[in-house]
Amino acid sequence: MTATALETAIPRVSTPAVGKTMKALVYHGPGKRAWEDKPRPVIHDPGDAIVRITTSTICGTDLHILKGDLPAVTDGRILGHEGIGVVEQVGPGVTEFHVGDKVIISCVTACLKCDFCKRSMYSHCRHGGWILGYLIDGTQAEYVRIPQADGSLYKFPDGADEESMVMLSDILPTGFECGVLNGQVKPGDSVAIVGAGPVGLAVLLTAQFYSPASIIVIDLDDKRLAVAKRFGATTVVNSTDGRAAERVMELTGGAGVDVAIEAVGMPATFGICQAIVAAGGRIANVGVHGKPVELHMEKLWDRNIAITTRLVDTVTTPMQLKVVRSGKLEPGKLVTHRFAMNDVMKAYDTFGNAAKEGALKVVLTTTTKA
Amino acid sequence: MTATALETAIPRVSTPAVGKTMKALVYHGPGKRAWEDKPRPVIHDPGDAIVRITTSTICGTDLHILKGDLPAVTDGRILGHEGIGVVEQVGPGVTEFHVGDKVIISCVTACLKCDFCKRSMYSHCRHGGWILGYLIDGTQAEYVRIPQADGSLYKFPDGADEESMVMLSDILPTGFECGVLNGQVKPGDSVAIVGAGPVGLAVLLTAQFYSPASIIVIDLDDKRLAVAKRFGATTVVNSTDGRAAERVMELTGGAGVDVAIEAVGMPATFGICQAIVAAGGRIANVGVHGKPVELHMEKLWDRNIAITTRLVDTVTTPMQLKVVRSGKLEPGKLVTHRFAMNDVMKAYDTFGNAAKEGALKVVLTTTTKA
Amino acid sequence: MTATALETAIPRVSTPAVGKTMKALVYHGPGKRAWEDKPRPVIHDPGDAIVRITTSTICGTDLHILKGDLPAVTDGRILGHEGIGVVEQVGPGVTEFHVGDKVIISCVTACLKCDFCKRSMYSHCRHGGWILGYLIDGTQAEYVRIPQADGSLYKFPDGADEESMVMLSDILPTGFECGVLNGQVKPGDSVAIVGAGPVGLAVLLTAQFYSPASIIVIDLDDKRLAVAKRFGATTVVNSTDGRAAERVMELTGGAGVDVAIEAVGMPATFGICQAIVAAGGRIANVGVHGKPVELHMEKLWDRNIAITTRLVDTVTTPMQLKVVRSGKLEPGKLVTHRFAMNDVMKAYDTFGNAAKEGALKVVLTTTTKA
Amino acid sequence: MTATALETAIPRVSTPAVGKTMKALVYHGPGKRAWEDKPRPVIHDPGDAIVRITTSTICGTDLHILKGDLPAVTDGRILGHEGIGVVEQVGPGVTEFHVGDKVIISCVTACLKCDFCKRSMYSHCRHGGWILGYLIDGTQAEYVRIPQADGSLYKFPDGADEESMVMLSDILPTGFECGVLNGQVKPGDSVAIVGAGPVGLAVLLTAQFYSPASIIVIDLDDKRLAVAKRFGATTVVNSTDGRAAERVMELTGGAGVDVAIEAVGMPATFGICQAIVAAGGRIANVGVHGKPVELHMEKLWDRNIAITTRLVDTVTTPMQLKVVRSGKLEPGKLVTHRFAMNDVMKAYDTFGNAAKEGALKVVLTTTTKA
Repeated sequence: MTATALETAIPRVSTPAVGKTMKALVYHGPGKRAWEDKPRPVIHDPGDAIVRITTSTICGTDLHILKGDLPAVTDGRILGHEGIGVVEQVGPGVTEFHVGDKVIISCVTACLKCDFCKRSMYSHCRHGGWILGYLIDGTQAEYVRIPQADGSLYKFPDGADEESMVMLSDILPTGFECGVLNGQVKPGDSVAIVGAGPVGLAVLLTAQFYSPASIIVIDLDDKRLAVAKRFGATTVVNSTDGRAAERVMELTGGAGVDVAIEAVGMPATFGICQAIVAAGGRIANVGVHGKPVELHMEKLWDRNIAITTRLVDTVTTPMQLKVVRSGKLEPGKLVTHRFAMNDVMKAYDTFGNAAKEGALKVVLTTTTKA
Repeated sequence: MTATALETAIPRVSTPAVGKTMKALVYHGPGKRAWEDKPRPVIHDPGDAIVRITTSTICGTDLHILKGDLPAVTDGRILGHEGIGVVEQVGPGVTEFHVGDKVIISCVTACLKCDFCKRSMYSHCRHGGWILGYLIDGTQAEYVRIPQADGSLYKFPDGADEESMVMLSDILPTGFECGVLNGQVKPGDSVAIVGAGPVGLAVLLTAQFYSPASIIVIDLDDKRLAVAKRFGATTVVNSTDGRAAERVMELTGGAGVDVAIEAVGMPATFGICQAIVAAGGRIANVGVHGKPVELHMEKLWDRNIAITTRLVDTVTTPMQLKVVRSGKLEPGKLVTHRFAMNDVMKAYDTFGNAAKEGALKVVLTTTTKA
Repeated sequence: MTATALETAIPRVSTPAVGKTMKALVYHGPGKRAWEDKPRPVIHDPGDAIVRITTSTICGTDLHILKGDLPAVTDGRILGHEGIGVVEQVGPGVTEFHVGDKVIISCVTACLKCDFCKRSMYSHCRHGGWILGYLIDGTQAEYVRIPQADGSLYKFPDGADEESMVMLSDILPTGFECGVLNGQVKPGDSVAIVGAGPVGLAVLLTAQFYSPASIIVIDLDDKRLAVAKRFGATTVVNSTDGRAAERVMELTGGAGVDVAIEAVGMPATFGICQAIVAAGGRIANVGVHGKPVELHMEKLWDRNIAITTRLVDTVTTPMQLKVVRSGKLEPGKLVTHRFAMNDVMKAYDTFGNAAKEGALKVVLTTTTKA
Repeated sequence: MTATALETAIPRVSTPAVGKTMKALVYHGPGKRAWEDKPRPVIHDPGDAIVRITTSTICGTDLHILKGDLPAVTDGRILGHEGIGVVEQVGPGVTEFHVGDKVIISCVTACLKCDFCKRSMYSHCRHGGWILGYLIDGTQAEYVRIPQADGSLYKFPDGADEESMVMLSDILPTGFECGVLNGQVKPGDSVAIVGAGPVGLAVLLTAQFYSPASIIVIDLDDKRLAVAKRFGATTVVNSTDGRAAERVMELTGGAGVDVAIEAVGMPATFGICQAIVAAGGRIANVGVHGKPVELHMEKLWDRNIAITTRLVDTVTTPMQLKVVRSGKLEPGKLVTHRFAMNDVMKAYDTFGNAAKEGALKVVLTTTTKA
């Protein structure tokens, strides 16, 4: 195929963006971030798409990056791995999306072709995985380059609202896949969720897909527990007194819970899960851990339990889209604060003081035109 | 991206084949086939690869096409959906294969991107499925264009032999996925396979991955039954007297078999499966059916059985490659006859008289140079 | 075994019933039933319990028996396989139940010890299965003998109401196990239920355990469809015009449904299921069939579907009890009519004219004292 | 219950054993055991059977008890939880076994009626579980009382040999259920087994039911590794140099293994499993642990792995019996030493010096007549 033929073959590539600039939230080392000018991204590989962001949001992980907890993130990196937008340009290998398509951006980039992707483990994609706003520039910007676009974007459903849909970029698949699916929540089960932050609440919302008989939510913050109650928790337990495990054992008549879901990422909260899991039960880890935990194999070896870990694969996004559209899941209710993208610096301040601000998910919207 | 940039971006595309010719086995309507000159295929879409065929084989389905049973196949079509070869050229969207790679060609074309592919149902791929040697030109030729190459080709393992590997194009995944996986063969199970043709024997070989306690093979042909015995059948039953079902019930003490696998595609053989499936058992259909069958729901409604159908997805090819390489599966033993590709007309004669010739799989090899 | 020996051996047994009589609904051949005196049942085997009935109900199967459709039912048989009651007496092998326990009687008798019971296929129990009100005397009576009591009774939950709980004897496990579980209903699925009688509605109620995106209910009777709509159907289709399949295909954009559940037991309704099942979908049969159906293997062989049959096993009763207690399932709403057990003859008249009477489940209650 | 009443109530019971004595291996506190006279067991509950032992064996757990590691074992307890024998007497609740039946005794006692048994978790049976030779008298004796006999005994297959069958009491179900099933070994998988003692070897034998591509066995003892090689290990690794994990990573090209099975019960060996499990893999624990282990959640949280624990349930015994009878599993090869039951004290000496003696399983046979 000659160059000319190829040019003809790829009519969907719009005017190149070379030389243009945009605004973006840029990381400049621990504690430093700025909303500043950056070059607009351009198509780099045949599978790329350029997306104009319309809605984004901030994740707890972004705060970790800002603290310097993830040293792989280098100075100059644009943050953000969640977003809604409009396709501006596609490479010649992109077949499922076209210029003008409104899309949900997945936090996980999936080539769909490698051995891990073929096993539905997009998180470990050999050409992707979680790289957005981490190893490559992210979505808290006016434009973003999405590699492996066919595996990393989802069609935005007609008539849906962006605030709800942006929850499908990360938090809902994370809660559902790492917590609910791995925990094998079943009708009639007793479930405990340790941690009522946004991810714990996403577990809570999606656990209800399977009609468990009880969902106990455990947290230190009464405000979050009140939200959990409103979102479907059957019981809430404030763990400030260090007796949460005891309370759960009482609530379950000494049996423990069928499924204990860790949504914090600390040895202590993982310890609660170990203490409350019933014989035959599952501990599903969702939290990001920074250090080892003590595993009480001397107590657990004969308890017929499973402990699972998982980085979200986002393979259930198509299914979740169907559930959201059926009205059985309203992810928009996780949103507590709204900012213009231009005010992303303020949005970070609010989200960084989540407890004080009563913040769950903070949504950013842009009014940039194509 | 400018045309020049793209040209640079795709260095793997070798000299175009435009204008060159090749030899191919061409269908010219019911009963008519010829080994004749055809233009060599060229890259058409960014995901295409051109593969030079080194080994191919003939499938029972090719005979059906020749009989005119599949009217979707038009005059001029190159037949064949199985093959081993060497990649000669790749489109810009191909990332997993390079010029010079030796590959196994899957009978199923998979885009990996559509909803069916994402559910591992490549057979129903919205941009592929079974099209090779059916709706597009196939592998009984010196060259073939493989669309969606990243999803439709597999790396040929170092040191493997082509005769064994070409069985992975179709027959082994078909037997395994439609028969063994759908039949949920488990250690200790009793299994019956109705039909000891190549596909039935592929079921027999792959059923042994799961250590069933007994495998009864049923056929009309004693020669094939003798092969089945050699390949691991614990009992063989010649069904010429119309009493195969009775015999199976005797052999199983009146219980029937846990798994009955239909590898013929006729109402009578499907009827045997219904008659011999145990309560709680599975009927896994592998055969291609041309007419309805009578399903005895008045007897089966309370028997807790499952009946499954499936067009091969070839999603288990990576796993089967591992098993073959471990020496636990020797698919090469399905090969009974070998021909040069130039003698494909003779090869069809032999395969078309399989019973008389004692033919199972007939392998075609070419000596075409790059 | 003499009464005296038993008396000594079974200290928990209350006064023996020998010689006493009771009232029962007795079958006297096709079309003939009577509410008449029968001897009270006594302990026969060590695993038996005698239960005093407090609530029972009538099943469509009872009508079939009365029509003479089940010739295994002999003259003199007490009908009924659903009930709530109080344990009056237990044999020496019974360990889980005690005199005075309030219990739910399962329609399926399970020894728990045979190969089928160990595989959770109680329906095919070698010492039980469905025998109650069929091969042995049933529950439409003041007392009933329950063999294999430890496997066939369930503790009545404190504070529950009998009307709801009697739905757990048969109809809810049947709808759930044969329809929902076998159909593998998953979050986001599209489901069609063919038949909106009591069992179809039980499918409808329990399918919602798994948050399918849509549930289409098909029936000939608008009154039943109105109930279905109230119970959670997202769309209802009246199939009187013979175009139900067409309508479902339109509603699903030509794709068909992920799960088609047959809850009637006729070739025509099974045919609808075949016509509407999507590639990769499941047909779960719940209906009782009296004749063969035509299975369109010529269309289905390559559609990757599964067809399942099942006689209810009642293995999910413990789970369903948990869901009912959590308030996520209100089976009592299936009850449309209530009668005193003494009026069971009238109750049959009402239930026998279900369409005209708008009857779903008809509950019978007794005021017999211990 | 008086003897007279029982005699009447239990017509199948042979002459009562009251007052008779037998020989048994009795625990008398840490380090103390004796082969001494004990009263013969008698029927105590309706579900009991008395079995005359013909073959027994010694388990590593018996050594732990003797060391005093299991303080729940009291002075005077008869040890042993494995055995083959002949039913001498049955209680009135026993329906599946009769006097004279030859049986395999399961190490786990299962009532089949409680919630755990109904979920196939016999290990946590509310009326049983592992109690034999632990909380009640065991099988290293001439006679043993087996409670819940219908759930705890299995028919000895005609023509089988006792040495093979006694491996089904504990070691084979343990290796298979805790290691292979929980590890979800699949065709083509890479498997590592840490520990080549009898249980590790039982894992090795039963892992082959599923045709993994490679099985790496790790141990400190070259003699055991040589046995492992003979039993089907594809590679063996001596871990004396503390570099076993490194070796496994090299052998797997840096990927790690799909399944890592811990068959020792030490922090170090559990640590090896953590170090070698591939992304998406499983760690299946079989070993009995006495202390906590460090779980590297900081490395594993995003690796999509599962860690499982299990006390053997023996629910797969019927399946394993079928596989043994098909000749696909020869458990007898685990036996290295044979003693008369009268020489059980010597047998313990040999088994207690397993490394020096090259002992795997030590079989005890009795010549006691009925």
